[in-house]
Order: sequence, then structure tokens, then C-alpha cells
Amino acid sequence: MFGTLFQSSAVVSTALSVATLAMFATAALAMLGLTWTSERWRVPLALSGVALLASGLEYYAASNIWLAGQQLSAALRYVAWFVVQPMQVASMFFFASIAGKVPVGVFWRTLAAAILMVLARYLGDARIFNPTLGVLLSIAFWLYILGELYFGAMADAISKSTRPIRLGYFWIRLIMTIGWAIYPILHFVDVVIGTGHVAPIIVLYTIADLVNLIAVSMIVLAVAGEERF
Amino acid sequence: MFGTLFQSSAVVSTALSVATLAMFATAALAMLGLTWTSERWRVPLALSGVALLASGLEYYAASNIWLAGQQLSAALRYVAWFVVQPMQVASMFFFASIAGKVPVGVFWRTLAAAILMVLARYLGDARIFNPTLGVLLSIAFWLYILGELYFGAMADAISKSTRPIRLGYFWIRLIMTIGWAIYPILHFVDVVIGTGHVAPIIVLYTIADLVNLIAVSMIVLAVAGEERF
Amino acid sequence: MFGTLFQSSAVVSTALSVATLAMFATAALAMLGLTWTSERWRVPLALSGVALLASGLEYYAASNIWLAGQQLSAALRYVAWFVVQPMQVASMFFFASIAGKVPVGVFWRTLAAAILMVLARYLGDARIFNPTLGVLLSIAFWLYILGELYFGAMADAISKSTRPIRLGYFWIRLIMTIGWAIYPILHFVDVVIGTGHVAPIIVLYTIADLVNLIAVSMIVLAVAGEERF
Amino acid sequence: MFGTLFQSSAVVSTALSVATLAMFATAALAMLGLTWTSERWRVPLALSGVALLASGLEYYAASNIWLAGQQLSAALRYVAWFVVQPMQVASMFFFASIAGKVPVGVFWRTLAAAILMVLARYLGDARIFNPTLGVLLSIAFWLYILGELYFGAMADAISKSTRPIRLGYFWIRLIMTIGWAIYPILHFVDVVIGTGHVAPIIVLYTIADLVNLIAVSMIVLAVAGEERF
Amino acid sequence: MFGTLFQSSAVVSTALSVATLAMFATAALAMLGLTWTSERWRVPLALSGVALLASGLEYYAASNIWLAGQQLSAALRYVAWFVVQPMQVASMFFFASIAGKVPVGVFWRTLAAAILMVLARYLGDARIFNPTLGVLLSIAFWLYILGELYFGAMADAISKSTRPIRLGYFWIRLIMTIGWAIYPILHFVDVVIGTGHVAPIIVLYTIADLVNLIAVSMIVLAVAGEERF
Ligand SMILES: CC1=C(/C=C/C(C)=C/C=C/C(C)=C/C=O)C(C)(C)CCC1
Ligand SMILES: CC1=C(/C=C/C(C)=C/C=C/C(C)=C/C=O)C(C)(C)CCC1
Ligand SMILES: CC1=C(/C=C/C(C)=C/C=C/C(C)=C/C=O)C(C)(C)CCC1
Ligand SMILES: CC1=C(/C=C/C(C)=C/C=C/C(C)=C/C=O)C(C)(C)CCC1
Ligand SMILES: CC1=C(/C=C/C(C)=C/C=C/C(C)=C/C=O)C(C)(C)CCC1
Ligand code: NA
Ligand code: NA
Ligand code: NA
Ligand code: NA
Ligand code: NA
Ligand code: NA
Ligand code: NA
Ligand code: NA
Ligand code: NA
Ligand code: NA
Repeated sequence: MFGTLFQSSAVVSTALSVATLAMFATAALAMLGLTWTSERWRVPLALSGVALLASGLEYYAASNIWLAGQQLSAALRYVAWFVVQPMQVASMFFFASIAGKVPVGVFWRTLAAAILMVLARYLGDARIFNPTLGVLLSIAFWLYILGELYFGAMADAISKSTRPIRLGYFWIRLIMTIGWAIYPILHFVDVVIGTGHVAPIIVLYTIADLVNLIAVSMIVLAVAGEERF
Repeated sequence: MFGTLFQSSAVVSTALSVATLAMFATAALAMLGLTWTSERWRVPLALSGVALLASGLEYYAASNIWLAGQQLSAALRYVAWFVVQPMQVASMFFFASIAGKVPVGVFWRTLAAAILMVLARYLGDARIFNPTLGVLLSIAFWLYILGELYFGAMADAISKSTRPIRLGYFWIRLIMTIGWAIYPILHFVDVVIGTGHVAPIIVLYTIADLVNLIAVSMIVLAVAGEERF
Repeated sequence: MFGTLFQSSAVVSTALSVATLAMFATAALAMLGLTWTSERWRVPLALSGVALLASGLEYYAASNIWLAGQQLSAALRYVAWFVVQPMQVASMFFFASIAGKVPVGVFWRTLAAAILMVLARYLGDARIFNPTLGVLLSIAFWLYILGELYFGAMADAISKSTRPIRLGYFWIRLIMTIGWAIYPILHFVDVVIGTGHVAPIIVLYTIADLVNLIAVSMIVLAVAGEERF
Repeated sequence: MFGTLFQSSAVVSTALSVATLAMFATAALAMLGLTWTSERWRVPLALSGVALLASGLEYYAASNIWLAGQQLSAALRYVAWFVVQPMQVASMFFFASIAGKVPVGVFWRTLAAAILMVLARYLGDARIFNPTLGVLLSIAFWLYILGELYFGAMADAISKSTRPIRLGYFWIRLIMTIGWAIYPILHFVDVVIGTGHVAPIIVLYTIADLVNLIAVSMIVLAVAGEERF
Repeated sequence: MFGTLFQSSAVVSTALSVATLAMFATAALAMLGLTWTSERWRVPLALSGVALLASGLEYYAASNIWLAGQQLSAALRYVAWFVVQPMQVASMFFFASIAGKVPVGVFWRTLAAAILMVLARYLGDARIFNPTLGVLLSIAFWLYILGELYFGAMADAISKSTRPIRLGYFWIRLIMTIGWAIYPILHFVDVVIGTGHVAPIIVLYTIADLVNLIAVSMIVLAVAGEERF
């Protein structure tokens, strides 16, 4: 939004603008939430709020670029992935660490996997690297993160915790499994099949980002709110 | 506002600019209010403040678009509805939850109804869906929200509460009944009768938004202020 | 400032830019003041700070419009009046309410009078309404507000209060009498005599706004500072 | 920075951009400092932080204007002086008031002198007033402020205070003597000798502003930090 | 980012945009961190957060300049160095001061060295000074800072401290040794060998800034978090 007129049928513009406003609004909510949740929840809550802020800035840029030329490049999407993914993964580590001791090595390994997951594919896309190898490595790094979330020390710490924490972890992990699966699928259609960044692809990416990022942040806020007393 | 000169008779510009400034100012007020109200009021207060922030950003965009071309599309209005409506409804759930236990199912049902109310009509307007069916579904979802507010668990929780809380709930519910009725009426004139987004329609939408959003937020702030001690 | 070069003799530019910077700076000061004043002063202090923020945004717009075309319309001034006036009047109600119980009816009546004072004249200026009747109604609403400030329940509550509160009220009321009298006078010269928005008129309006808004806010901050202990 | 490319030799651009970034950064630092210093230091600290914010906005404007036309007018500098000078002087009054009782008359007299010091010269520069008289009055008002700082009630209050407060006052007063002397000297070269706002003059003004404003603010922050316990 | 479309292969754009978003996001994180860490950690944490904010603003400018003309000048990089370097060095002094008493002379000497390290080379680059002498002086000042970090009073204070503080200091010092060594090397290739600010040079500078600045800030945040109890 913000700058030019768009027709009611311009579904892409509407989707990008809704994402911009909704992400800024929920980022503000998560940050204001720091004032009413207990101190031990602040790290995962701040991380998920800051991820929404970064993503909102990306969608604000995307809205303006779309309005200027009815076109978007995949590069912008990578920019947000590079910034948002490490924060989402770190947020999970600190979430689990509230429930119980998680070795710090888990933090470094999942953080590295999150960065490499995006980097491998990016170098492939930029032809600095073999594209097929890139996509395979990306999937491997994603599966590694899921492995840690399902069978690693974080799952152990959570299993001994309170019901709200277990429930919150269950839902965030589900988002990182099902919600994130949309990205490689869309990326396959967009880049490998080669439809390019056409309107339906952009709208689907945007809905995925909206749901995934806002849900993670609001789940952390809700669990922190329940665990206040 | 902010960018070009407008004549005193340019009532639309004035209305859009007043809405922008008033919404940013009351959003700031609601957020500053978090520092003097008790902790249990922070969720509904933050939600209503954040809704004003999002709506203020929309009016800032609308002001600039109007100044550039003396035209506005309905799409921009949908953008704000998609973001603001769920927050208003969620704000009511958390308001009622302060008075007494409200089942969490109410939260999910009214949130879904608020999103679907806007989505049904949007898909109709964008011709992705039958427009008449869209408007009928929209009205049904709105009536469902009103049903929850008048006869559901939220009303029950409120009825056993203090006078300021009961009064505040009464007024917000009235706004969501009478104040919100303006939207389908204007939408009928604008899209179904087909006057389009002419000046008087825009001014009336703007006054409705100004009154509805600011009133809800200031009522929450006032009740929270009274309940402080 | 902000965008283009202006000569030392461009007194209008300097006045608009000084107002922009001074209002943003004192708005920040009033908001930071919320951290060192006691809780009961926060409502009037936040209201006066938020009024400065809104007015600073208006002057920022005015600076840019002036630099672009060496012209300003009265409409922009109305935009700020619509937003700032109700906040100033509400700030007085909450100021007096700290000193003693003031019936809530006073709040609604002075708020309505502040909005109608600006609206009556605006509708006249926009030729939606008889201009002479508009100006007479405006003056009547202003006198009504002054009546409440001098002889109403707010004055009663204040009279039984501490010296800093009485002194602060005395000065703010004087500003709303003498400081505000400048607006109808300038408006008479500008619109009725018909000089238009010429340079000396703009500079005088700007100095009036600077002094009136900043003084009210800093008086509230000073009284709140004295009453801290 | 901020908008266009500049060559490594463009020393003016670099100076203006460094001033912009450094002032925003230290303004943020002073404001964050409000969270770790004791309550009684908040007024002078907030004032000096807010002065840095206003000055940073001025340098942001100046950077853009310079990049657009390799020219700056003295008017912009006056804009900042009008806003910053009263805040610096008020900051000293509140600093001294922490050490001991200072009559409120000192506040009003030094504030008036700070405004008149800039106004006298400004009216001269804008040819509304005799330029020579303007500069003489300016110097007289500056000397008056220095008189208050060296021999007035503020110096008395400070002399009975702790070592960090005495040291801080000593350094800020030195800045207002030696650091401020640069302004009339540069102004003499720029306007009276008539070199105009050439590159070396701008760079020297910028370094003076950088050092003077940041030093005052960081001294207040440092003294407040030492006096915390 | 923010303004124009870029191709997936435009690695420079992606790097600059990732740096912008990541720095704003981690600056927000460091500042939010002030709400959950103990008071004594606030000075180094605020300093490192504010350095990220300043650097993020620089990268935001750099992104826009690159998009406008596929070119960047070294001057922009100096702007950030002038602002960021003194803050990084001051942050180390306050970090070490938490562990034990460090003479204030160390603060002034390392601060001066950090400014002179950048200034010496800058004056050489701008041909105000002999370029070879400039680079040699720069290296001498950097080595002096390293000397203080390895063998000075800061290292002594740290050596008697807790494990998290010693570990944090170890890593930040390593960054200031190895991470900073990249700057003179790249500067040698860029300016002395004379490749100019070509794409690989910019990407490497950007990665160095990203890693160095974010790492220092997150280490301070992590140590402050561990030392909370
Ligand atoms: C597995 C895989 C991928 C995974 C991407 C993911 C999991 C992205 C998540 C993004 C989020 C949560 C963004 C929020 O703004 C890529 C890089 C598409 C490349 C193909 C293989
Ligand atoms: C029933 C109905 C509608 C309801 C809209 C409402 C209730 C909007 C409320 C908006 C608010 C509160 C906005 C604040 O910014 C539509 C979608 C017009 C479509 C026709 C049927
Ligand atoms: C009585 C009267 C008026 C009063 C205006 C006032 C009292 C404005 C105050 C404005 C302030 C305080 C602005 C701050 O930004 C009008 C509308 C000119 C119309 C003529 C009659
Ligand atoms: C005595 C004197 C002057 C003094 C100016 C001063 C003292 C300015 C201080 C400015 C600061 C501290 C700015 C920070 O941004 C003028 C007006 C040049 C006019 C000539 C005589
Ligand atoms: C020794 C040396 C240099 C050192 C630069 C350094 C150490 C820069 C650090 C920058 C950081 C940390 C930036 C973060 O944004 C120069 C000036 C290249 C000139 C050649 C000699
Ligand atoms: Na858009
Ligand atoms: Na994305
Ligand atoms: Na407008
Ligand atoms: Na709307
Ligand atoms: Na201006
Ligand atoms: Na005005
Ligand atoms: Na610049
Ligand atoms: Na200046
Ligand atoms: Na970019
Ligand atoms: Na840099």
C-alpha cells in the first residue's frame, strides 16, 4: 500500500498491504507484550516480535515495488528469509530453554542450519553454486532443524513442562513442519517449474508468511501470558 | 495529507488528514496508557491501540493517494478491515475475560467470523466469488458476532462484573451494532447501487472509522483507568 | 528545513521549521516525563504530549508544502484544530480532576464545545453553512469553554487544591483566554477581511501555536514534577 | 549519506552525515539512559537528549539539502539554534537544581536570554533590525548567561555539592564558554566578513555542534550514572 | 532494498538489504534487552545497540544509493566508521568496568585512538594528509587499542571475573582482532591496489560489518542475560 491507487481486483496489492499492516501491528503487540509478561519469557517474545518487524519492513518494500511495476523478484523474499529464519529458530531454542536446560550446542547447530538452508538455495539461484545441489542441501538443513525439534534436547526439555508450554511448543513445531513446507513447494513451482513470481504465487507466499510469522509470535505471547502467575 | 496544498473546500482531504492525525494521536495515547493502567487491562488496551496505529497508517496512505489523484479505491478500505476487524473482536474477548472466565472457543469463533465477514465480501467484490452470496455471508458473520456479544459467554461474564466494566461493555457492543451498521449501508450505496467511492461516501466512511475506532479504544482506556485501584 | 534550501530572509520557512522541531522535541519531553512523574498526572501529561506530536506532524507537512509552492491553505490549520482542540480541553478536565471530583458531564460538554467551535466555522468556510452564523457559533462555543474554566466545577475543584496546581491552572486558563483569542482575530483578518494566508499571518499563527501548545504541556509537566512527592 | 552518492573528497557531506548519525545515536543513548539513572537526574538528561534529537533532524535535513545542491543557507542553522539553545540552558538550570535550591527566576532569565541571543541576531540577518545592534545584543545576552553560570545562584548551589556534580558543571560551563565562542567567530567570518556558507565554515560549525551537543549530553549522563547509588 | 526491483543475481543488493534489516532487528533486540537485564549491564548493551542502529541507517542509505546507480563510494563507509568505532571501543571499556575498576584514562585513550584510527586514514584518502602516513598511523592506533585489550587494565579487571564475563570478553576481543583485520585488508585492495568499490569488495565489507557488529552486541546481551541472577 502506501503510495498509489489500486483496483479492487488487485489482489496482490491487497495481500501485500494487509501483510505490511498486520505484521507491523503484531510486532507492536509482541513488543508491548514485554510489559505484561514475566521476565523469563522476554527473549523468545522479543525475538518473534523483532522478526515480525523485519518482515513488515520487507512487505512495505514489496508493496511499493509492486505498485511501481506490477513485478516482484525472488531476491526480496530471500532477504527476509536470511533475517527471519535465524530469529525464528533462535526463538524456539529460548522457548524450550524456559522449560528446562537445553545444551547451547543445539542453539549453534540450529542457527547454522537455518542460515545454511537459505544460503545453499540462494547460491544456487544466483548461479554461484549448483542449483540442484543447493535445493537438496536446503531440504537437508530443514529436515535437520525438524529433527532437533522432534527428537532433540528441546523436545526433551518441553516434555517435562507445564501444559501451556507443551501446547505452545506443539503448535509452533507444527507450523515449522507444515507451514514451512509451503516454501519449498512454492519455490519449486516458481523457480524449478519456472512460472516465475506470478500473482497467485506471490499471494500464496504472502498468506504463508502472514500465518506462519504471526502465529508463532502470538503463540509465544499467549503462553507467556498464561505462565505469568 | 502531507505533501500538497489543498483548498479549504477540499472536505475529503481534511477528513482523511484529520483521521490520520487523530488515529496516530489516540494510538499513542492508548500505548502510553499501558504505563498507568493495571496489568490485567493491558491485552485489550494494547490491541485497541495497535488497531488505531494500523488504521492511521491506512489513512496516511489514503491521504497521499487522494492528493495525487482525487480518487480512492475500495481496496484500501478492505486492507484496513482485514487487519482492524480481527483486532477489535479479539479486544472484546480479552475485555470480557477480565470480568470472568470466557471459553477460548469464543475467541476462535469470533476471530474467524471477523475474518470471514470481510473475506466473503472481498472475494465477491474481486469477482472470485458470487457477489450476492458474499454480501449475505458477510451479514451472517456479523450477526453471529453480535449474537456472541449479546447472548454468549462474554455477556454472561460481564453481567457479574463491576459497574465501569458493564458500562464499557455496553457502549462498545452498541458501537459494534449501530456504528458498524454504517459499513454495509455505505458499501451497498457505493458498490451495489454503484455510486462508486464519491466524496460524500468517503467522508462518511472516514467519520465512521474515526468515531468507531477511537471510541472503542478510549472506552477501554477509561474503564482500565477506573479499575486501577 | 527538510527538503530544500531557503534564504535567511525566508522568515516563514524558519518559523514553520522551528515549530516542527520544537513541537517534536517538547512532545518527546512530555512523553519522557511520564517516567518521572507520579501516576495520577499521566493522563493530562500524555494528552498534552500527544497534542504536540499531532501538531508537530502538521507543521512538518506545512513546512514541506510551503517549500514546494510558497503557499499554505487554511484547511491544514483546521486539520490541526480538529485534532488538537479536543485534546487540550480534555487535558484541562483531567488536570482539574486530580485536584478534586469534577462531574463527567463537564468532560462531555467541553469536549463537544471544542469540536463544535472548530466545526461551525469550518462548515462556514467550506460554504456548507452560513459563514457569519458559523463564526458566531464558534465564538459562543469558545466562550462556553471559558465559562466552564472560570465559573464551573473545574474551577471549584482547583480552588481547594495545592499552590502548584492552582498556579498551573491559572496559567493554562490564561493561555486559553488570551493565547486563544489570537486565532479568531487572525482568522478575521485572513478570511473575513480577506488578506489570505499571507506571510505575516502564517508567522503569527505559528508563534501562537508554538507558545500556546508548548506552554500548556510544559506547565502540566512542571506541576506534575512539583507534585511528585 | 541518505540519498545520493558522494565522492571520498566530499568532506562536507561526510561531516554532515557523521553529525546526523552521531546525534541520533547519542540522543538514543541519553534516552535509554533514563532507564538506569535515578529519577532526580531525568529532567536535565531528557532535555539534553531531546536537544540532540532536534539537532539530528536538522543535520538530516542539511545533508539532503547539501546533496541536492552543494549549498546550505544560514537559516537552517538558526532553526536549530532557536530550538537547541533554550534546551541547553534549561538543562543547566535543572542540573544545578539537583545540587541545591536555585531560584526559579534564574530559569526564566537564562531561558529568555538564550532565545533573545538568537532572535536579536536573526532579526538583524533578516534585515528586520539593525544588524550591528543585533550582533551586539546577541553577545550581551550570551555574556549574561555566562555571568549566571559563573557568579549566579547556579554556581552557588553547585559549589556545595559532590565531586562528580562539581566536575560535570565545570566542564559543561567550559563548553558554554569556549565551545560556544566558536559560533560568533564563525558567524563573523561567514556573514560580516562575508565568505558565505563555504565548505570550511560548514565543516567547522558541524564539528562545533558535534562536540558541544554530544559532550553536554554525555557529561549529564556520566554524572547521573555516578550519582546513581 | 526498499524502493526498486532487483534481480536474484544482484548479490550486492541482497547483501546490503540483509544488513539493513538484520541491523535494525538486532538493534531493537539489544534495546528491548535493556528491560530484562540487570541495571549494571545497561551501558555496554545500550552502546552496542545504538551502534547497530547507526550502522543500520548507513546500510539503508547504501541500499538506496546502490539501487539508484549501482555504485557506492568509500565515503559512506567512513561515515559509519567514525560513528560506530568510538561506540564499540567505549562499549568494551564499560563491559570491563563491570568486572572491576578500570582507570578512566583507559576510556579516553582508547576512544581517542578509535577516532584517530579512522581520521588518519580519512585525511589521507581525502588528500588533506599524506596517504601512506595515514594508513601507518591508522594501523598504529588499531594496534594500540588491541594492546589495551590484551595487556591493559581492562584485561586485568576481566581476569578476576566470572566465567561468562571472561568468555564474552575473550570473544569480543577476538572479533576486534581478527574481524577488524578484514577492514585494512579490504581497504588495501580497494584503495591502494585500486580495484575501487567493486561488487565483491562491497559484499565482503558488508558481511564483515554484519558479523562484527551483531556478534559484539549479541555477546553483550548474552553475558548480561547470564549475569542476571
Ligand atoms: C526447504 C527449502 C527451502 C525452505 C524455506 C523455508 C523453510 C522458509 C521459511 C520462511 C519463513 C518462515 C519466512 C517468514 O517470513 C527453500 C529456501 C525455499 C529452498 C528449497 C528447500
Ligand atoms: C456486514 C457487512 C460488512 C461489514 C463491515 C464491517 C462491520 C466493517 C467494520 C469496519 C471497522 C470497524 C473498521 C475500522 O477501521 C461489509 C464487509 C461492508 C460487507 C457487507 C456486509
Ligand atoms: C473562537 C473562534 C475560533 C477559535 C479558534 C481557537 C480557539 C483555536 C485554538 C487553536 C489551538 C490552541 C491550536 C493549537 O494548535 C475560530 C475557529 C478561529 C473561528 C472563529 C471564532
Ligand atoms: C554570541 C553570538 C551568537 C551566539 C551563538 C551561540 C552561542 C550558539 C550556540 C549554538 C549551539 C550550542 C548549537 C547547537 O546545536 C550568534 C547567534 C552566532 C550571533 C553573534 C553573537
Ligand atoms: C587499521 C586500519 C583501518 C581500520 C579500520 C577498522 C578497524 C574498522 C572497523 C570498522 C567496524 C567495526 C565497522 C562496523 O561498522 C582503516 C581505517 C581501514 C585504514 C587502514 C588501517
Ligand atoms: Na500495496
Ligand atoms: Na518472505
Ligand atoms: Na490530506
Ligand atoms: Na476503513
Ligand atoms: Na521549512
Ligand atoms: Na494550527
Ligand atoms: Na550526507
Ligand atoms: Na547548528
Ligand atoms: Na537493497
Ligand atoms: Na561500514
